[in-house]
Amino acid sequence: MSINRKPLILITNDDGISASGINQLIESVRPLGEIVAIAPDSARSGMSSAITAIHPLRLNLVKKEENLTVYSCTGTPVDCVKLGVNEVLRRKPDLLIAGINHGSNAAICVIYSGTIGATLEGCICGIPSIGVSLCDHSPDADFTQAAQYGRIVAEKVLTDGLPQGVCLNLNIPAGKEVQGLKVCSQTKGYWAKEFQLMQDPLGKTVYWLTGEFVNEEPDNEQSDEWALNHGYAALVPLQINLTAYRFLEKMRESYEL
Amino acid sequence: MSINRKPLILITNDDGISASGINQLIESVRPLGEIVAIAPDSARSGMSSAITAIHPLRLNLVKKEENLTVYSCTGTPVDCVKLGVNEVLRRKPDLLIAGINHGSNAAICVIYSGTIGATLEGCICGIPSIGVSLCDHSPDADFTQAAQYGRIVAEKVLTDGLPQGVCLNLNIPAGKEVQGLKVCSQTKGYWAKEFQLMQDPLGKTVYWLTGEFVNEEPDNEQSDEWALNHGYAALVPLQINLTAYRFLEKMRESYEL
Repeated sequence: MSINRKPLILITNDDGISASGINQLIESVRPLGEIVAIAPDSARSGMSSAITAIHPLRLNLVKKEENLTVYSCTGTPVDCVKLGVNEVLRRKPDLLIAGINHGSNAAICVIYSGTIGATLEGCICGIPSIGVSLCDHSPDADFTQAAQYGRIVAEKVLTDGLPQGVCLNLNIPAGKEVQGLKVCSQTKGYWAKEFQLMQDPLGKTVYWLTGEFVNEEPDNEQSDEWALNHGYAALVPLQINLTAYRFLEKMRESYEL
Repeated sequence: MSINRKPLILITNDDGISASGINQLIESVRPLGEIVAIAPDSARSGMSSAITAIHPLRLNLVKKEENLTVYSCTGTPVDCVKLGVNEVLRRKPDLLIAGINHGSNAAICVIYSGTIGATLEGCICGIPSIGVSLCDHSPDADFTQAAQYGRIVAEKVLTDGLPQGVCLNLNIPAGKEVQGLKVCSQTKGYWAKEFQLMQDPLGKTVYWLTGEFVNEEPDNEQSDEWALNHGYAALVPLQINLTAYRFLEKMRESYEL
């Protein structure tokens, strides 16, 4: 980033442009640079890294103030990032922040989360990227501490950058004084009992997604769930290269033809 | 898997239950066990690991023959896997195969692909899982070699299993005799020039996703793009834990509060 110009910060989320979380994030990081927010026009939770190819997207200018421009988009969180980078911004942003998500994106939620989808997409585009989530789903959650921690991490990333191919997943516990910040690994676990069966008005069975998270390593003090359960903000570095490198050699021996 | 019963194989895809790829996959692996296919009722390409939480899902029995049951589902590829594991199957499958996808899922496409979303979901559920893709988008592509390689890998995985948290991404080149199978890493790269601008009938600008893949390591002979470009089937082991472990210590020093 040039020393003469303000950092350019791209902000998005998966709860939609009207959500409290993204608006409190914008206010918190606004002093750090020029902000462009491009977010879905309504909630796109659980959209992971989904992209829209089957129909075209629309982009609508919501507001333009000094150092703040806000757009809504008809697509997914990743679509928002792609539109920002390809069509809206005149240069590559110095930072991308997705959030503040209404609800945890710790553990295996990174796989399903639209917030993390957008964060990974920023990383793919070569932008230092952070996903920020508060462990509280309510629309009127108290984002004060999440915004503070988000800004601290954002300032650090603006100064130091991030390794190529690595982005950050920051989760903040809700309903208590945050004890500090821990750098963690993604907790091993999965969701179980995932559907509630219901009858539609015609009496046909339908399946509504729900579920319980099963923590497979509750005693791992390095894991993000442990940190959150003990009152710490949890910061996990994530990578966009999914290759399981440590099995490559063994697999070569048994699979190559 | 018990020695006395046939392997239970869950099959899904992201091109929809009517696609040629999934039906040729089913025929190819049918001799290996009891097949249950649960796939989206129409195309869900680019859905990544998206899940449907905002409305309930429907599951429709398409056909039931000896050792083959086929359902269509109104949800995403990951929804199909979750419904299979939670609601349809009486025990955990011995194998999940997603595909055969119409089009490559090599390199960074693993992040966006619904086929790989379903494969990662199988892995999350503890099922040895394989995504199979043919580098040809056409609806009437020739899946013969893809089906052969898919079956070879499926048989190997049924015999040997896979390490916990690791699944397989198999891509097969199109339009030529496959030279063999190489175990590869995910090629570093990204998509550029991603939108074609159009006018809607009222003259408003809309953005349609397209793009060109940029290979950042075209000479890496270990990468999946290199293998595919040289006529080999490419097999990449993928992991569901995205933690960038090699940066954990360094990050602890600079980020912990």
